[in-house]
Amino acid sequence: MPGTPPTRYVFLGPEGTFAEQALRTIPAAERGQRTPARSVGEALDAVRSGDADAALVPLENSIGGGVGVTLDEMVAGSPLVITREVVLPVEFVLAARAGVSLADIRSVAAHPQASTQCRGWLRDNLPDAVVVDVLSNGAAARSAATGEHDAAICAAIGAAQQRLTVLAEKIADHGDAVTRFVLVSRPGTPPPPTGDDRTSLAVYIAHDRVGVLLAVLMELAVRGVNLTRIESRPTGEALGRYAFFLDCTGHVADDRMGEALRGLRRVSAEVRFLGSYPRHRWTGSEGDGPVPAPPGQSDVDYADAAAWLARIREG
Amino acid sequence: MPGTPPTRYVFLGPEGTFAEQALRTIPAAERGQRTPARSVGEALDAVRSGDADAALVPLENSIGGGVGVTLDEMVAGSPLVITREVVLPVEFVLAARAGVSLADIRSVAAHPQASTQCRGWLRDNLPDAVVVDVLSNGAAARSAATGEHDAAICAAIGAAQQRLTVLAEKIADHGDAVTRFVLVSRPGTPPPPTGDDRTSLAVYIAHDRVGVLLAVLMELAVRGVNLTRIESRPTGEALGRYAFFLDCTGHVADDRMGEALRGLRRVSAEVRFLGSYPRHRWTGSEGDGPVPAPPGQSDVDYADAAAWLARIREG
Amino acid sequence: MPGTPPTRYVFLGPEGTFAEQALRTIPAAERGQRTPARSVGEALDAVRSGDADAALVPLENSIGGGVGVTLDEMVAGSPLVITREVVLPVEFVLAARAGVSLADIRSVAAHPQASTQCRGWLRDNLPDAVVVDVLSNGAAARSAATGEHDAAICAAIGAAQQRLTVLAEKIADHGDAVTRFVLVSRPGTPPPPTGDDRTSLAVYIAHDRVGVLLAVLMELAVRGVNLTRIESRPTGEALGRYAFFLDCTGHVADDRMGEALRGLRRVSAEVRFLGSYPRHRWTGSEGDGPVPAPPGQSDVDYADAAAWLARIREG
Amino acid sequence: MPGTPPTRYVFLGPEGTFAEQALRTIPAAERGQRTPARSVGEALDAVRSGDADAALVPLENSIGGGVGVTLDEMVAGSPLVITREVVLPVEFVLAARAGVSLADIRSVAAHPQASTQCRGWLRDNLPDAVVVDVLSNGAAARSAATGEHDAAICAAIGAAQQRLTVLAEKIADHGDAVTRFVLVSRPGTPPPPTGDDRTSLAVYIAHDRVGVLLAVLMELAVRGVNLTRIESRPTGEALGRYAFFLDCTGHVADDRMGEALRGLRRVSAEVRFLGSYPRHRWTGSEGDGPVPAPPGQSDVDYADAAAWLARIREG
Repeated sequence: MPGTPPTRYVFLGPEGTFAEQALRTIPAAERGQRTPARSVGEALDAVRSGDADAALVPLENSIGGGVGVTLDEMVAGSPLVITREVVLPVEFVLAARAGVSLADIRSVAAHPQASTQCRGWLRDNLPDAVVVDVLSNGAAARSAATGEHDAAICAAIGAAQQRLTVLAEKIADHGDAVTRFVLVSRPGTPPPPTGDDRTSLAVYIAHDRVGVLLAVLMELAVRGVNLTRIESRPTGEALGRYAFFLDCTGHVADDRMGEALRGLRRVSAEVRFLGSYPRHRWTGSEGDGPVPAPPGQSDVDYADAAAWLARIREG
Repeated sequence: MPGTPPTRYVFLGPEGTFAEQALRTIPAAERGQRTPARSVGEALDAVRSGDADAALVPLENSIGGGVGVTLDEMVAGSPLVITREVVLPVEFVLAARAGVSLADIRSVAAHPQASTQCRGWLRDNLPDAVVVDVLSNGAAARSAATGEHDAAICAAIGAAQQRLTVLAEKIADHGDAVTRFVLVSRPGTPPPPTGDDRTSLAVYIAHDRVGVLLAVLMELAVRGVNLTRIESRPTGEALGRYAFFLDCTGHVADDRMGEALRGLRRVSAEVRFLGSYPRHRWTGSEGDGPVPAPPGQSDVDYADAAAWLARIREG
Repeated sequence: MPGTPPTRYVFLGPEGTFAEQALRTIPAAERGQRTPARSVGEALDAVRSGDADAALVPLENSIGGGVGVTLDEMVAGSPLVITREVVLPVEFVLAARAGVSLADIRSVAAHPQASTQCRGWLRDNLPDAVVVDVLSNGAAARSAATGEHDAAICAAIGAAQQRLTVLAEKIADHGDAVTRFVLVSRPGTPPPPTGDDRTSLAVYIAHDRVGVLLAVLMELAVRGVNLTRIESRPTGEALGRYAFFLDCTGHVADDRMGEALRGLRRVSAEVRFLGSYPRHRWTGSEGDGPVPAPPGQSDVDYADAAAWLARIREG
Repeated sequence: MPGTPPTRYVFLGPEGTFAEQALRTIPAAERGQRTPARSVGEALDAVRSGDADAALVPLENSIGGGVGVTLDEMVAGSPLVITREVVLPVEFVLAARAGVSLADIRSVAAHPQASTQCRGWLRDNLPDAVVVDVLSNGAAARSAATGEHDAAICAAIGAAQQRLTVLAEKIADHGDAVTRFVLVSRPGTPPPPTGDDRTSLAVYIAHDRVGVLLAVLMELAVRGVNLTRIESRPTGEALGRYAFFLDCTGHVADDRMGEALRGLRRVSAEVRFLGSYPRHRWTGSEGDGPVPAPPGQSDVDYADAAAWLARIREG
């Protein structure tokens, strides 16, 4: 039913990872049904097939999954759109069963990327422990709970679900790392503009020349649309065909974004609209509030210019 | 009455100059009333005041009058628009009264810019003649007719009106020089697009930075609008305020020109629309026929992109 | 000893993965010592510490490891440079112990990204088999060899090392996927230009504005330097500081690349040179041979322009 | 003799015009020999042939002569360079013989462009006087001195030379108009940089596309070279060949200007260097002092970037 918020959620599993933690920051998801998926592709397919209403998957700088996969899966099948983003600080904990102290720890279960991010802490605090690779942060917590390993590097949610004791918090070497997750649904009317929105796009071009990329960026620049992320990916589909994944500031309902999108549609081989949605604000974050439209780029300016042109055309 | 072609024409005088010759290439002007004006300003004021319906004045590469003056006068008062252009080869003749031969010529009357353009021919053919400055090509012809001087460098029309004999044709050192004249009227519905049109603009910017000029040109470039002339002029009105006079390929009724104009309106301090009109084709000319819209820039492409955006916005 | 080729190689392990297969395409590595590393970070650290001479790690479109990690680790410590790239088709096989046929297979071990890429084939050929996640393609092969699982999705090299029988080849859904690996060393004189080289860079900028990115790209564009990959990454180090990872066509020894690099150095917060190295050519590949310098951008053109300027400056 | 300042000056005549007034603001010219020329072409030819050391001609917004002519003549023959500029307020006076008062004036001699600029004043103060065109401001003064006409619109210098009484000062409708004159010599070492210099160029391109002009401007923009004037002119020499006359901020001896010039040399069909010279400062002027190099564009930044590149190339 249109307007009904999603109630069946899928997330990149297993349980007890940052993705679940991110999903549970969304009130409707906290009340709804939440199912882990084995992969990003499986999560998105569940939405495509109607088995789920929305999927929460990592998009950027992710632990245990990756940007590339999500982007590729987003555009590989029938259209999907992002309706929300959640930015979560990546705060690893070292957790163990009750009664285990640091001095007892001989083996630590961790996802390879998690142990990579905590290398400094491990070297300083557990120099003699063996780090054992496991498939996910959730699996690490489970293996500590079962006693397979003495401790786990995992998310707080994973430690809690497995009733582990947190021996150390924020053990990542770079304290300010974050992961950006997105909530993905089947296409529908985008959420209304809030004044601080993001729009995600995939733009395909036939050649990998810098001139072509400049042309794409100029379509944004002349409408004052700012770019917060860009990533080129070979498409694999056709010889020399490239895709750019772009995150822009603004909403598809804004005049300037609308004109920029129409321009991209005209100059590129294909544009795929991946959603307009509120930008996530988190405390201690980028520090920049909503960015107002540059001079001459507000909806009022567009309306004024359109009225002026109409007068000229009529003489 | 709307739709009635102009019948009262004014042109940059005096009689017998290239401007009159250019005006008479327009059939309606050949049938209408034609009055010389003493200056470009006077010609344009006659149109502004309603004393004339249209003025023919030189715009580019002119002899005996100038680009700068015309541009400045166009924007100095109430709005005027160009409705037509005439490109005329600058073909100077040496003319004298019947019976005068080259060997007899001791003095040649010429406008300074005319004698400048014929310097090589004068040096080779009349090395001993004195060149006397006069105020216009028409005045040169008259002074030869009255016998004040032995011969004149002038336009063919001036020689004919003064019943002079043409002793030498095409005596300019650069044989392919042309002057571009424009027919100027009070604002009205522009002439319909022909598929090979030009649009003239004055764009004002608050600063003279190359970045600002780049911004102006990008507004054109991203819509595939080509530029055939650019000239910056200090406005004199305000400190550091600059005007760019631009001639572009296309018509204000084209979608891409419309979007480019709206863009210029938004990013510049002011845009003055100076007309959309058919591009003059003359034999032996640039050799380039009508330039089709670049890929993605036709009206059909604009309509397609607008429909696509509407679908996205509706979900 | 300078000029001595590296003899001690490390690669992203474990054994039997595509990284090892890629490394062994390099003749010197085939003869040298090859050690698996547990992570990209560990591999690069071995080079930084002098324990290895060179590391082979995945850079783009990788299975079982990722672009992001490699890029982040490349710039996270003391300087390293790429000296070579290897592009390897990602050709998964289904392998099992001798005597096991397709009909016998109940469980398949696979890295999650490998099973994702072979989803279509699995659905069509082993609809009833359970897919079990393991940590790497090498681990998949081993678990099939030990009989823990009936079969493995793995690299050909992994199947061979574990003496498995290949039941099906090229089972990935997209047949033309490739992974790009790079060989990384401590800084030294770059390999000599071959006429078909690539240069990798990390460019840091203080703001995420599209205008800043345009400025970076213009530094390349005006020197005719082409871009084959771009990826923005938040640095995590400082608020609003962004890094762009760029792959460009050309060599640091080329005049145009030199001028472009100097330009990037001046306009960005920091540039990190990540190496100039021969572009890998593989059969059935992009189909484009070496790209000649655009008009005006050859070393001869640079020398001519420098001589011309010297003449002007001297008068 | 090198280093010897010019002593034989020619200026756009006749005597008594603004050009002479501008020339006499240069101390060496006040002491040297000053000869009027009949045209800009004649003035420049006198320098080319060695008959004069330097020529003072109008370049911009000129009265009684024009930008276009000067630019065309500058590039039409052997190389010439600008070594100095003089910006002169265009302050017209109304002058008459002693004893003549405003009420007595029936005829006013004026160059057509002078009377155009004083139209408002004439209408308000001498509504019944006849304005008679003459060939120059100097000729206007002479005709008032001889009594041919009752008064003259002319330059202060012209009134003084003809011993006329000034009846009204600053009678131009736009009080802040200025003319920019340049002093032109045969090529030699440019005057040393002052920190506030201008460089003039003619850049030829083979096509009139906006993309080509954008390419030219980007060569300037990426080196932080600012543009203070631009004018396109058809060259007349070849079909579709265009010239851009550019005035830039900076000196050919600056690193950034040098790199920009080398870039223009490479990307254009031809560049003609027209001189680097101190920017004229006049009281009540633009109000902007010397413009410092933008961030990253000083000579120090260029030296730093060159040293950095050398280190990279050596490894």
